[in-house]
Amino acid sequence: MTASDPIPSSDALVLHSADARGVHVLTLNQPKAFNVLSEAVLTELQHRLDRIAADPSARVLVIAAEGRAFCAGHDLKQMKANPRLDYYQQLFGQCSRMMVSLLKLPIPVIARVQGVAAAAGCQLVAQCDLAVAAEGVRFGVNGIDVGLFCGTPSVPLVRNMQPKQAMEMLLTGGFITAAEARARGLINRVVVPEQLDAAVEDMVQAILSKPRAAIAIGKELFYRQRELGIEAAYQLANQSMACNMMYDVAQEGVQAFIDKREPAWRKAG
Amino acid sequence: MTASDPIPSSDALVLHSADARGVHVLTLNQPKAFNVLSEAVLTELQHRLDRIAADPSARVLVIAAEGRAFCAGHDLKQMKANPRLDYYQQLFGQCSRMMVSLLKLPIPVIARVQGVAAAAGCQLVAQCDLAVAAEGVRFGVNGIDVGLFCGTPSVPLVRNMQPKQAMEMLLTGGFITAAEARARGLINRVVVPEQLDAAVEDMVQAILSKPRAAIAIGKELFYRQRELGIEAAYQLANQSMACNMMYDVAQEGVQAFIDKREPAWRKAG
Amino acid sequence: MTASDPIPSSDALVLHSADARGVHVLTLNQPKAFNVLSEAVLTELQHRLDRIAADPSARVLVIAAEGRAFCAGHDLKQMKANPRLDYYQQLFGQCSRMMVSLLKLPIPVIARVQGVAAAAGCQLVAQCDLAVAAEGVRFGVNGIDVGLFCGTPSVPLVRNMQPKQAMEMLLTGGFITAAEARARGLINRVVVPEQLDAAVEDMVQAILSKPRAAIAIGKELFYRQRELGIEAAYQLANQSMACNMMYDVAQEGVQAFIDKREPAWRKAG
Repeated sequence: MTASDPIPSSDALVLHSADARGVHVLTLNQPKAFNVLSEAVLTELQHRLDRIAADPSARVLVIAAEGRAFCAGHDLKQMKANPRLDYYQQLFGQCSRMMVSLLKLPIPVIARVQGVAAAAGCQLVAQCDLAVAAEGVRFGVNGIDVGLFCGTPSVPLVRNMQPKQAMEMLLTGGFITAAEARARGLINRVVVPEQLDAAVEDMVQAILSKPRAAIAIGKELFYRQRELGIEAAYQLANQSMACNMMYDVAQEGVQAFIDKREPAWRKAG
Repeated sequence: MTASDPIPSSDALVLHSADARGVHVLTLNQPKAFNVLSEAVLTELQHRLDRIAADPSARVLVIAAEGRAFCAGHDLKQMKANPRLDYYQQLFGQCSRMMVSLLKLPIPVIARVQGVAAAAGCQLVAQCDLAVAAEGVRFGVNGIDVGLFCGTPSVPLVRNMQPKQAMEMLLTGGFITAAEARARGLINRVVVPEQLDAAVEDMVQAILSKPRAAIAIGKELFYRQRELGIEAAYQLANQSMACNMMYDVAQEGVQAFIDKREPAWRKAG
Repeated sequence: MTASDPIPSSDALVLHSADARGVHVLTLNQPKAFNVLSEAVLTELQHRLDRIAADPSARVLVIAAEGRAFCAGHDLKQMKANPRLDYYQQLFGQCSRMMVSLLKLPIPVIARVQGVAAAAGCQLVAQCDLAVAAEGVRFGVNGIDVGLFCGTPSVPLVRNMQPKQAMEMLLTGGFITAAEARARGLINRVVVPEQLDAAVEDMVQAILSKPRAAIAIGKELFYRQRELGIEAAYQLANQSMACNMMYDVAQEGVQAFIDKREPAWRKAG
């Protein structure tokens, strides 16, 4: 976080903190509104993500939320107040652009989830690279309960679990537990609520101990190759790894391994 | 079910019932033949699926079967009696067309599974949107035991579980339990046999309580976007959700949510 | 294994055995070097795989390893000694070609895993058709620990488990247990170390009891159709199954099923 981009005041829609290690935290800050993704919140998130994407000192991003719910999805009041096709196209386009920004960010994104993650809130978890949830969290894509099938949430959802598992959630609006979410692959870890921050910090430290450049090239490759046939995927991966191996951090890392010592960048990290 | 399409007699290949709620049930009705998918059965299923697809009052389809086995796959006697490449091309083409019809049907399809689901019978389960099985059910794609690799079943199978899990079943002809099938994602629920109908009815009621139009647009989107890269998937989903939000049912559903009341369509549903 | 291709001496990089049943075993044979995939080892593996691919008597391939580790990945000393982009491009290209050869081999490939499978060693397991591991085995893609994101391993990894599960391993370098690997779908079975050979032999025998030609056409179809949209996948599968059904082994297998006897090829197998 640069000096020209001060930490927002505590009444901001989204809190943004960054520490000396490059750990950024974006915290949804409308607990009374269950942290819905209004236009204003989406705009603020996009602005922050664009800044973080351009910040070479950023190392990892945590998406968190204030209050008892992680995120309840879109702002239904706002949607109802603008009953026009072009408005909805713009709104979902804006939301999807923010979601894709998480995937394109050159640093890992970890969802820190408490309470409930519903509809686009569940999508937000699904779209992150990693996710940790407290026991008791419930995940659902329940737009169908108000007559709106969770179409955009279904995009990352079916890429995070098997299709019948996703389809049941989408058709019935039913919620699953954190344990079930972990078993399916939607999240990485479930911990008792008191351990939520410590579990996120564990992941953060694991990431900080690796070189930023290697993570950046690897994350980009990961999502690009996944969409290709396997031979095209390997060709792309060959180029990516060869480039990565030419990085100073890899040359130093491999030499340190040979010398049975810590790489210089780890001490520095 | 319209008056021009009476419920078939009890000796029909496929029983077709429909109630006032729009719940259609297609029941494979050759228990002594383990409900094999002969040409005649496939023709009858296709005919019924085409009728249901065109029926705006249909809300959900249950695929069920009479007797101790759900479905044993293709009719091997019939296949052996027609040892010609063009016959087999026609047969598998007919079967695959029926399977794709399940995916394209604008209403959810639930498999109600007892006994054994083998080869194309297992494929039938895999191709449905949702599936409930009784404890004790075994699932296998065992064509390889007669020298015929279950190629068409492998299409939905590898889209319902991880590839090594599918490959083991395809190469060895081995069967898995209902519990294993659930853990992998092939089915949604496992219940004691006495609860099978109740579990299916639970799913049916959950679906009936949602608007048909929202489910239809959502199901179509779900399978289409799954085959796209993630950015193209989001673009398609943006359009689908914007259209869905313009539906009367969504406008009413969202207003009802704001008003903290049930949507009018739910009372009517 | 033909007479012109004698079993290598015990100090060979890769041991190659083949029995009268057509069961080939390629054993990584540098236990002191944790069976790293050096250029020479990759060349030898490719040579052996090309021979096996051309051998119509080969029925199944087991990939095994001597010593306490299955495979630790690439040879980092060799990589550090050749710090040139074109060298790394060639090296990863060579490795990926070997990996794709496993997928294209007309016979099933089973990984027999003990100890540790790390980086490209974990990739090797992921790329096999089937895998059996001893309890206590650990799987990881830990290149990031030396500043080299496991890009090529990520290709089969994300095709064997859900993306967040793969991403956590790739970003943190953390290892998972054999039980976790099985739950995710990376491997098929976990057994006590003393049962490892017996478990592999069970799979081998199951495969040997099926006709080679049906497995070959089925395996090719499986990986090809997986990369297609579902309707194109079905079209390809229709042709594959129709062709398979014209094979003598399928005509005999189906007739034997009708006659309630063993197929002639099974007795011969």
